[in-house]
Amino acid sequence: MLEKVDLTKKVSKEEYKEKMEQLEVKLGRLQRESKALGIPVLIVFEGFGAAGKGLQIGHLIQSMDPRGFEVHPIKNETEEERMHPFMWRFWTKTPARGRIAIFDGSWYRRVLIDRFEKRTKSKDLPAAFHSINSFEQQLVEDGNLIIKLFLDIDKKEQKKRFDKLEKNKETAWRVSQGDRERNARYDEYASMMEDMLFKTDTDYAPWTIIESMDRRFATLKIYTTVIKAMADQIEKVKRQNAEKAAEKASVSKETSGAVDPVDEIAREADAQMRELQVSILSKADLSLSYTREEYKEKLDKLQKKLEKLHSELYRRRIPVVLGFEGWDAGGKGGAIKRLTARMDPRGYVVNPTASPNDIEKAHHYLWRFWRAMPKDGHVAIFDRTWYGRVMVERIEGFCTTEEWKRAYKEINDMEKDLYDAGAIVIKFWMHIDKDEQERRFKERQENPEKQWKITDEDWRNREKWDQYEDAVNEMLMRTSTDYAPWVVVEGNSKYYARVKVLKTVVDAIEARLKEE
Amino acid sequence: MLEKVDLTKKVSKEEYKEKMEQLEVKLGRLQRESKALGIPVLIVFEGFGAAGKGLQIGHLIQSMDPRGFEVHPIKNETEEERMHPFMWRFWTKTPARGRIAIFDGSWYRRVLIDRFEKRTKSKDLPAAFHSINSFEQQLVEDGNLIIKLFLDIDKKEQKKRFDKLEKNKETAWRVSQGDRERNARYDEYASMMEDMLFKTDTDYAPWTIIESMDRRFATLKIYTTVIKAMADQIEKVKRQNAEKAAEKASVSKETSGAVDPVDEIAREADAQMRELQVSILSKADLSLSYTREEYKEKLDKLQKKLEKLHSELYRRRIPVVLGFEGWDAGGKGGAIKRLTARMDPRGYVVNPTASPNDIEKAHHYLWRFWRAMPKDGHVAIFDRTWYGRVMVERIEGFCTTEEWKRAYKEINDMEKDLYDAGAIVIKFWMHIDKDEQERRFKERQENPEKQWKITDEDWRNREKWDQYEDAVNEMLMRTSTDYAPWVVVEGNSKYYARVKVLKTVVDAIEARLKEE
Repeated sequence: MLEKVDLTKKVSKEEYKEKMEQLEVKLGRLQRESKALGIPVLIVFEGFGAAGKGLQIGHLIQSMDPRGFEVHPIKNETEEERMHPFMWRFWTKTPARGRIAIFDGSWYRRVLIDRFEKRTKSKDLPAAFHSINSFEQQLVEDGNLIIKLFLDIDKKEQKKRFDKLEKNKETAWRVSQGDRERNARYDEYASMMEDMLFKTDTDYAPWTIIESMDRRFATLKIYTTVIKAMADQIEKVKRQNAEKAAEKASVSKETSGAVDPVDEIAREADAQMRELQVSILSKADLSLSYTREEYKEKLDKLQKKLEKLHSELYRRRIPVVLGFEGWDAGGKGGAIKRLTARMDPRGYVVNPTASPNDIEKAHHYLWRFWRAMPKDGHVAIFDRTWYGRVMVERIEGFCTTEEWKRAYKEINDMEKDLYDAGAIVIKFWMHIDKDEQERRFKERQENPEKQWKITDEDWRNREKWDQYEDAVNEMLMRTSTDYAPWVVVEGNSKYYARVKVLKTVVDAIEARLKEE
Repeated sequence: MLEKVDLTKKVSKEEYKEKMEQLEVKLGRLQRESKALGIPVLIVFEGFGAAGKGLQIGHLIQSMDPRGFEVHPIKNETEEERMHPFMWRFWTKTPARGRIAIFDGSWYRRVLIDRFEKRTKSKDLPAAFHSINSFEQQLVEDGNLIIKLFLDIDKKEQKKRFDKLEKNKETAWRVSQGDRERNARYDEYASMMEDMLFKTDTDYAPWTIIESMDRRFATLKIYTTVIKAMADQIEKVKRQNAEKAAEKASVSKETSGAVDPVDEIAREADAQMRELQVSILSKADLSLSYTREEYKEKLDKLQKKLEKLHSELYRRRIPVVLGFEGWDAGGKGGAIKRLTARMDPRGYVVNPTASPNDIEKAHHYLWRFWRAMPKDGHVAIFDRTWYGRVMVERIEGFCTTEEWKRAYKEINDMEKDLYDAGAIVIKFWMHIDKDEQERRFKERQENPEKQWKITDEDWRNREKWDQYEDAVNEMLMRTSTDYAPWVVVEGNSKYYARVKVLKTVVDAIEARLKEE
């Protein structure tokens, strides 16, 4: 989940002030509502040292009624705590119905800092993760809301903050030897965090990454996340209560026409969240291009290289899974054509993914993709993939909200299975901008040879560009992993895009062969 | 889950014949219904070698329409399968909607036979369990029904069956070197099975243990389990369909008065299941007793021993958790009194468990018990426990069916946390028969000193004896683990019961001290 985090987003002082005023009022209101409904809330702050957990908790509680929450700083265990099972200190701190418990550090320390410092042994990790998930699931099933925030900063920023703290006599004590050590071995620690996120990002208690380089941005995103989660939970409880009441009265549960203010808060938070969503796509530099000569030369070299690597893969029995997604007319077909140009056709298969047929519909949506997964030593290329679940199916309403929401984890699990079985897994997003798409659509329409490639549906999809962009950004964020990364391919220049795809595949294979 | 399995149950030929006739008709009917509703069903056969998987599958399919199911024998991987990720062969074999897939062996082989033979490495086990649970959860969330049957026989019986097979030329080939090896190291293999059951007995895909010493009994139980699970699933799907229809029509979802035949099948299967439920309690020999002299002598010796062990526990910082449950007037109080008679009062606490107060009700039901868990080196004794969830709360309807059903796993998880933190955990069921209870109740009523101990509620509970007995049997089966066993204490003789409790505690402590 940390793969695609963009840490550059900022918020101006003015925008911050204006938005915060509204958010603070909303949070106060939601706290009162959730108290009245008896909803217990746990808010967990985790993340890198000096990312600003303490400061952000300070901001968050400003708009809360102090009689309704409690902050639990989770530091080294006390004598008393050490003499109990690890989860004891957290179980005993779970909030009563209607109350909010805020954790500055949490039960995750056992699989983060304690793991890094080898207080948690490798062999005890599976049990630790089991305990954590069991704890959270039990609480959620009992009606608790768990909001998990992960504050992310990069290595350089962390070092800068530590330096600044140390320079000041009053704050120097806050930087420990351990902090410095974790900064020095930042990448190693980050990979433990990634592992933790993979194992505990559940549908009942999902993580939200808070980009924390800019403190104002982080505060806004934390407020928005908490508000959205609380508003959703309040809605849910109200709906359940209404259903129960209706069942008792045995009447239709038609609701009155009046708009619930919480409903409105939820909708606004949704819009705000989209705004704060860091757009991975918008970071792509679409001006990148190659001349025809550059293209020819690079392409030829890479294709020859891949030809050799392909037989080496076969010899070493390494399977490869390549997924292609992207905007309509984004250049998937052309890229696949150049990719496979010199590959031995006995060693790869291109699987075009159309709408599921009847037999496919009669199975789990992943079934047809599992069937097409390559044997050891073979390459499977998918032109459109299992990610349809979180794009077209989500947007067109072909599946329920619960279904596409849980699909991120299902897909991550499947790709992890492939990776664990030795496969190289890469997913490409063929990216172009809206103008370029229009140009290509028109060109297709005007060219009799290409007319078959363009349908009314393509134009209809184009109208939903913004919806797709949101869905794609969320997908890239939630499913780009170190074992199966997403690669955004800058595609306005077809030459550039095709070379990038080939080079990415070649590099990944070479890296793997070196490992072995 | 294998801790308390009783392998002695038998069924006569006549009873078998009579019951099977009805069951076969029902199964055929359910297959047709689930086909019409498009329910995909997976039936998994696992268990010890020679427990009769093949034979039982043969019985099961006899009453099914062969066009609706497929049997998948899962042996060593084929060349093709070995060249794919492990789960590939199972994903590709998942049934289409309305079809039944029967697995003779399954995806569990990776954590059973492959683990035993070290083809699965220790370090790969967590990922393997993750894959298994993810696979099953995804299928269930997609509407699949997964029925998991574990066929259990003991070491001696297994050896006998292997011997018999080997004597016959026609069947000798069926006994492999591996089979013999697993028989020789039966206990080791059984503990891997226990570990597997702990990690994969989920609420979405629970295991049913099939006691398979007597083939007729096993067949009956398999049929009943499958029928019950299918009938329940059919009911569920019908209810959901009705709700959806009602929502669309925006009318009340009042159902018609007619009894659905599937409903009746489900109820009958429920009753039958109870009958087949191996009663752990009925195996207790309540005639066991001691004379006053024997009692005095043993008690004195054990109490002195425990006194010493108690300070040794303190010195070594080992916590102990002792739970007492049992019939009203079963002798809990008396046993606890004798247990603690010579223990240093600074080192133990007795926690009486009454109905939860308001603050306790405002938390998860396990919260109050977590709070009372002992520090290292201390002993916590619970007079009634967290098992109230699956007894009184279940029977009196203080919690929902989903709640008490998932409580088995929640409780197992909690006790595992305690054990992992170094605790000795033992649960006692103080068992008396109905006549003995009546005698004690009357005695209490007649004795002015003891009248406070008996209330109208006690008499009311007594009327629900059978319901409690079912609940207790299920509880003992599902929550007696090697890390936190249940001990049924034969309690008609108070002398015998008290000595047994003391001796169990003394033995458990001594065993632990020896380990360290």
